[in-house]
Amino acid sequence: MEKLGKQTIKFNNPPVITSTASIVGPKEANGPLVQYFDQCLEDEFWGEKTWEKSESKIIKETVNMCISKSNIPSSDIEYCFAGDLLNQCISSSFGLRGLNIPFLGIFGACSTFVEGLSLCAIIVEACAQNAICAASSHFCSAEKQFRFPLELGNQRPQTSQWTVTGAGTAILSKTGNGPFITHITSGKIVDMGIKDANNMGAAMAPAALDTLICHFQDTGRSPNYYDAIITGDLGYIGKDILIDLSADKGYNIKSNYNDCGVMIFDREKQDTHAGGSGCGCCATVFSGYFFKQFQEKKLKRLLLIATGALTNSTSSQQGESIPGIAHAISIEL
Amino acid sequence: MEKLGKQTIKFNNPPVITSTASIVGPKEANGPLVQYFDQCLEDEFWGEKTWEKSESKIIKETVNMCISKSNIPSSDIEYCFAGDLLNQCISSSFGLRGLNIPFLGIFGACSTFVEGLSLCAIIVEACAQNAICAASSHFCSAEKQFRFPLELGNQRPQTSQWTVTGAGTAILSKTGNGPFITHITSGKIVDMGIKDANNMGAAMAPAALDTLICHFQDTGRSPNYYDAIITGDLGYIGKDILIDLSADKGYNIKSNYNDCGVMIFDREKQDTHAGGSGCGCCATVFSGYFFKQFQEKKLKRLLLIATGALTNSTSSQQGESIPGIAHAISIEL
Repeated sequence: MEKLGKQTIKFNNPPVITSTASIVGPKEANGPLVQYFDQCLEDEFWGEKTWEKSESKIIKETVNMCISKSNIPSSDIEYCFAGDLLNQCISSSFGLRGLNIPFLGIFGACSTFVEGLSLCAIIVEACAQNAICAASSHFCSAEKQFRFPLELGNQRPQTSQWTVTGAGTAILSKTGNGPFITHITSGKIVDMGIKDANNMGAAMAPAALDTLICHFQDTGRSPNYYDAIITGDLGYIGKDILIDLSADKGYNIKSNYNDCGVMIFDREKQDTHAGGSGCGCCATVFSGYFFKQFQEKKLKRLLLIATGALTNSTSSQQGESIPGIAHAISIEL
Repeated sequence: MEKLGKQTIKFNNPPVITSTASIVGPKEANGPLVQYFDQCLEDEFWGEKTWEKSESKIIKETVNMCISKSNIPSSDIEYCFAGDLLNQCISSSFGLRGLNIPFLGIFGACSTFVEGLSLCAIIVEACAQNAICAASSHFCSAEKQFRFPLELGNQRPQTSQWTVTGAGTAILSKTGNGPFITHITSGKIVDMGIKDANNMGAAMAPAALDTLICHFQDTGRSPNYYDAIITGDLGYIGKDILIDLSADKGYNIKSNYNDCGVMIFDREKQDTHAGGSGCGCCATVFSGYFFKQFQEKKLKRLLLIATGALTNSTSSQQGESIPGIAHAISIEL
């Protein structure tokens, strides 16, 4: 691999995405992408006593499914990178404690899945045959932890997003037929002073812009190089902001840009306000929908930019603004 | 780099630890290692209004000090890996939001510093000239978050450890005079069913054992290859358990083994019960004491194994056991 410009790595032997898997909750199963997910749950508990245990089960079973689909013995998967939104990332560590694969915990809020893909790609090109990454989120555990008790029936502002219940996972390998991860552009923390914890899209859009422009500058590519440019979970508000900010910088992304948080729910029928969010948003939409588009050759060049809001409820209560981050990967056939 | 055995990477061009820095709180400044830390604070707030803001300031200033000591322009540091114990790792993300370096958040509980050193080493051998890693913890923010309000004056059991207030950081570079990171052994999650959240040493010792033995098997080395084998924060109880468990497996580590949590506080005078803990424990003791031992050629071969308890207060309340993890690095002159 080699560095291109300031923040991009170009892989000389691009790692292959061998297999993906996704499991989602009932609300996601009522959305427009239902046919692409591997499994849809009937309720948010999946037979567990708590939402946290349910989220752990979701990431565990998604990882097991991905390994099973890949036909790679789990003993041949050399590293696992995983993370989630729960305090101290307990969804991943409890869900994957039986995995018996060297485990490197990551935290990038909703950018976690692409951070994991990036680190897997580095380690696979550098020395491993196979590595797996996974990320999860759960609407109920996230609401309980970051906002209000669900039982309160609190009214959500129109700018708020709906945390996706689900997990996505992908195995990267040294050899195979593709799709390939050809470049990664790792983002810096960007804090533009937004303090509204119910408007994450606005808080994260400047970080997405920073990484997007850096990717184009480092690679010499322009937006029309890609069939699709997809952000993780900016939602409707963040998406519009990113289109405007990009245009101001001379990049027109309007025709081929969309957002996983916009895609996963039906705006008219599902009432999620500003769209989907959470580590599981980008993870399930990529593992479910986009990977299958690659397999069917309907998609040849994708720029996936996952965004994260690096905040918590304590920092909000202490009057802090919301730092954002965005990591990008270029996936090509 | 190349894989050795199942879990170890051997570096062919071992990355150099160019510079380290450490800042600690007042209790650590009263301990036996005071002369080795770069800066000692007079109180736990450091002029900030909250412990969380203080912890962010500690990691920020430690990183700035490390960059300054290295004489490397911060624009030449290509990646930052950092993490901490606070929910959603806000110490790192708020402390380092102005850093302007591509940021990859990591979470390995108290194993975070060595996880960061490991990932820095991989990316430096693979493609970067310089990378930095950092980890922090803070006694007051950790007690508040994981246990009881400090104002309650709650009695601590004898098995409990004292979270270190402090941050440690290190810059790794492609070239220099050493010390060098020659091998990393990344650990699996190990959960032996321990449920006592006031006895982390016992919960983490089996993970340390797993990684320790794996390191010896993968590299063909034995305990006496190293001048020192140092765990992150098993404390007095975990240290004794690890010595016993290792002996059961045929490895005698008694003569050259110690633990950062044992070293950082005076057992007789400081009343920390089972010793120090927290991401900042291993980070400050390595960045302060051990790095200087290398510089003075008093130490030539160190195996550093940081351990983490991948738990939170919710999982304890839900009756879960405590999964542990341990990552090892071999540092040599």
